[in-house]
Amino acid sequence: MRAVIASGTGGPEVLSVGELPDPTPGPGEVLVAVVATAVNRADTLQRQGFYPPPPGASEVIGLECSGTVAALGEGVEGWAVGDEVCALLAGGGYAAYVVVPVGQLMPVPHGVSLVEAAALPEVACTVWSNVFMVAGLQPGDRFLVHGGSGGIGTMAIQLASATSAKVFATAGSAAKLAACAELGADVTINYREEDYVDVVTADGGADVILDNMGASYLGRNVEALATEGRLVIIGMQGGTKGELDINALLRKRGAVLATSLRARPADDKAAICASVVDNVWPLVADGTVRPIVHTTMPLEDVAAAHALMESSDHIGKIVLTL
Amino acid sequence: MRAVIASGTGGPEVLSVGELPDPTPGPGEVLVAVVATAVNRADTLQRQGFYPPPPGASEVIGLECSGTVAALGEGVEGWAVGDEVCALLAGGGYAAYVVVPVGQLMPVPHGVSLVEAAALPEVACTVWSNVFMVAGLQPGDRFLVHGGSGGIGTMAIQLASATSAKVFATAGSAAKLAACAELGADVTINYREEDYVDVVTADGGADVILDNMGASYLGRNVEALATEGRLVIIGMQGGTKGELDINALLRKRGAVLATSLRARPADDKAAICASVVDNVWPLVADGTVRPIVHTTMPLEDVAAAHALMESSDHIGKIVLTL
Repeated sequence: MRAVIASGTGGPEVLSVGELPDPTPGPGEVLVAVVATAVNRADTLQRQGFYPPPPGASEVIGLECSGTVAALGEGVEGWAVGDEVCALLAGGGYAAYVVVPVGQLMPVPHGVSLVEAAALPEVACTVWSNVFMVAGLQPGDRFLVHGGSGGIGTMAIQLASATSAKVFATAGSAAKLAACAELGADVTINYREEDYVDVVTADGGADVILDNMGASYLGRNVEALATEGRLVIIGMQGGTKGELDINALLRKRGAVLATSLRARPADDKAAICASVVDNVWPLVADGTVRPIVHTTMPLEDVAAAHALMESSDHIGKIVLTL
Repeated sequence: MRAVIASGTGGPEVLSVGELPDPTPGPGEVLVAVVATAVNRADTLQRQGFYPPPPGASEVIGLECSGTVAALGEGVEGWAVGDEVCALLAGGGYAAYVVVPVGQLMPVPHGVSLVEAAALPEVACTVWSNVFMVAGLQPGDRFLVHGGSGGIGTMAIQLASATSAKVFATAGSAAKLAACAELGADVTINYREEDYVDVVTADGGADVILDNMGASYLGRNVEALATEGRLVIIGMQGGTKGELDINALLRKRGAVLATSLRARPADDKAAICASVVDNVWPLVADGTVRPIVHTTMPLEDVAAAHALMESSDHIGKIVLTL
């Protein structure tokens, strides 16, 4: 099959399309003929050698895909060859075929094209599991998301807005802030010009913060929390070790959570996917939540797609078609 | 009324018994004639000037008491003058009379003397709210408590053991460790001689840690967490600012929570007290959980009681009688 192969670890140029053996679905697994996949920041870390696949996962990069069911492994029920699907993957998405544990297979939401559907699994599962299942965002809560114009950010703004939370989003340019506002952010903050802590605390602080920066934002995120606020860290673009002001956290009865979707056991991922299908897909089907696709490129342009992701010039997702 | 008066901030010697005006219960409040109160570490901080009472609370030290209902404020139902009670207080316990919001009044559990009942409210409410209501300790979980022989520790060991958790307790002497074991700790760890991280991680890590040290233990507590473990910090005897290894926390999908009972709004305290009466009092009544009283001293010995608390030579609670 066609698949993205890495000649080593390093810059985007190590990636190119080559040939690998077709994978075979085991018991409880489904073989998907991939129509599209999408680029995640974790993919760029894996390419650099910083984020190895979990045990048992494909060595091929790619955490999500859309496509059609090509074969069913032993004991799989509820799906048929030819079904259009999208899927959350532990790896292997940058390829013509990928094997998926059945619990991570989801239908394509109504009103979304098969190609666009590749842009949904990672952001929908990440935002839904962290902001809603773990941090319990409620209507009327104040919600702050950093990197509001990225893939995660654009989904987080839409889902939080659909929940009637008050949404604060940070980004680094006027165009990105405009995109955040258009998606439903009530307050947009250019982090190059304004201190988000001032903006959020002037309004009472954030009940939930979704953070992709880690160490460099830890102190200010704790400052920006409301009483009983929850800081959920899902990325460490600003480093891994930061000073925690426990007294500040204690005065707020706050919580700092750090999570990762990829390392979760299959049962957890299946529960998250099921909850996403129940809670997020209807919002996609009725147009409340849209896949935000910055650009769609052929798989052969994978190196350029990674370079674009690392430039942070995109708004929303970068999709690759097979 | 007789009450402990502080001549200033400083050592135990600033405390003595004097006279203050009787307080009057407002709407929704009850006046309690105090029979006994108990010493908490927070009391010693307040005496030193580090932990001022929350707005509206009595300036008199004392976070819990037992006694009899002496008068009912407007609109109070369900209690009668003469009822034996114990209570969680925002302050004012070191006095002959104290005013209590009715939601913080609890019956004396069956089988416990009125004097012993003064040793229960703070530890029962703190442990129940943090370990069970917030951190959700479940049967079979591994639970680590630091300072296992203190007031909080002795209650935490008993409640976690009653829940069929595997209980790890740290303390600093053989006598204290023996007390922890007698109360139900499965594994006792002398922190002067052993690294608790090694002991707990050898068994899979702690699902819940109840910590009173704060900064000095932060890094090692995160190391000691199991996957999806929760570290609940309720004291900062080891400092307020510590380095958080976000990467370590993220790999475990862990959470760091910091909380305080005293600053919670009255509604929260009422909900906690109600849950304690429902869940903890039956365990006290059937003898599963006992108030652990190190010593009972007259209120006039308040300075000696504070000195004893600060020596950390006690096991369990230090009770003061009126």
